[in-house]
Amino acid sequence: MSTVKPNNDPDCFNRVRIVLVNTTHPGNIGAAARAMKNMGLSQLYLVEPKEFPSETAVWRAAGAAELLDSAIVVNTLDEAISECRLVVGTSARERRIPWPLLTPREFGDRAYFESQQHDVAVVFGREDRGLTNEELHKCNYHVHIPANPEYSALNIATAVQVLCYEYRMSVLAAEQGGPVHFDDWDQPPADNKMLEAYYHHLQETLERLSFLEPGNPRQTMTRLRRLYNRTRLDVMELNILRGVLTAMQNYIFHTEKKLENLDNSSEK
Amino acid sequence: MSTVKPNNDPDCFNRVRIVLVNTTHPGNIGAAARAMKNMGLSQLYLVEPKEFPSETAVWRAAGAAELLDSAIVVNTLDEAISECRLVVGTSARERRIPWPLLTPREFGDRAYFESQQHDVAVVFGREDRGLTNEELHKCNYHVHIPANPEYSALNIATAVQVLCYEYRMSVLAAEQGGPVHFDDWDQPPADNKMLEAYYHHLQETLERLSFLEPGNPRQTMTRLRRLYNRTRLDVMELNILRGVLTAMQNYIFHTEKKLENLDNSSEK
Repeated sequence: MSTVKPNNDPDCFNRVRIVLVNTTHPGNIGAAARAMKNMGLSQLYLVEPKEFPSETAVWRAAGAAELLDSAIVVNTLDEAISECRLVVGTSARERRIPWPLLTPREFGDRAYFESQQHDVAVVFGREDRGLTNEELHKCNYHVHIPANPEYSALNIATAVQVLCYEYRMSVLAAEQGGPVHFDDWDQPPADNKMLEAYYHHLQETLERLSFLEPGNPRQTMTRLRRLYNRTRLDVMELNILRGVLTAMQNYIFHTEKKLENLDNSSEK
Repeated sequence: MSTVKPNNDPDCFNRVRIVLVNTTHPGNIGAAARAMKNMGLSQLYLVEPKEFPSETAVWRAAGAAELLDSAIVVNTLDEAISECRLVVGTSARERRIPWPLLTPREFGDRAYFESQQHDVAVVFGREDRGLTNEELHKCNYHVHIPANPEYSALNIATAVQVLCYEYRMSVLAAEQGGPVHFDDWDQPPADNKMLEAYYHHLQETLERLSFLEPGNPRQTMTRLRRLYNRTRLDVMELNILRGVLTAMQNYIFHTEKKLENLDNSSEK
């Protein structure tokens, strides 16, 4: 009962490629593949990786090893992005000549929009020094993850995760016509009539218990209303709570009945 | 010249703790610490880690090793979250009794809001089987990263990255009063008068080049206007483009002058 509908154009995920340039540690390639598959992406391009194929990459890819098998290894960035009509480079945002700079969220929206129509590349640089200026200047846009200025160097695979996540969120948001929101409760919320009947039942019971002065609930009932209204009681929960009140009232009724009988018998 | 202002309440980052329960691979602890520091968080709690301290954790933490030094190791989840007033557990979203379920973005906003006032915990489960139902029932909310249904098991450190990222984005958005957007261009955009002078200069030059029929630009000038208007030319770019036109006009002028001189000399 989720409001997240199945993907209308699953191909759009296959039109976004992740390009890793000169990756040193094969573990990062594997972890990037896992993050991609987690988010529904599949197209991995490797520009002159230092060590690939690699057992470490396979281990870190976990259930996404097939993305390593189908990864395309090329010698130059140009080969990796040649037929892409949108190329976005990840950047540390301190270039002499500023490039149009997207936040990850803006990147997600733009990549979603363009991947409806054509191939999109997201380019990640080396572990130690990112992309060169020459590589960055091949990009239409740069994207920057606004990290802690005191320690802004993200691991490549976690950077891949964040951007693929934002892409996926943009696709899901477009499909459901608004920001992604889960709505898979198993019971409908109680309606106002049910709630009012409950509050009436509750107050009556609390008065019978002398917890409340009859006809004078003061702020106590207000606080109880605020509590349950905020909780967004569902129908089943409400029935349970009413069952508790009924059980209490029955107990009170039977106890008083018993007391009455005892009184009557002692008077005999 | 960023619109991202310095953090007004840097303490809020220190009020959000990441709790890792029964982590098996120390590499994941290190990678989680790195993701936390990248996003400005510092409070790491480890509930019965299988292997800690660990060299692998230190290696994967890279520049965030001090978070491992200050990590608090405890025996039970209760100890890790005891004074927290908001506890959010990461969940695979397939529990028998649904819990209030947040998207990562909703989590970011809520955690930001509450971390202004009190301690917040985000709890991550075991690599192979997440959190137990008993652990999940200690939480106020669950949060789920809407992953690819065909492969939804995220690495713990990348899950930490996504949630810490959303938290940071919510803090930054609150600080700048709207969605995070970069605005650090180095030059002001050209004003309309400059643009019109440029288009005039351009048309004149193209007519001199017989690229356009004098006085009849047809759709060509419209398309050029659309191109440059869309590009949002800045002042320096505009000066460069005008410099090109001037150079072209100078060239035309001098060439024609030369040709005229040659004509004149040949007529002599």
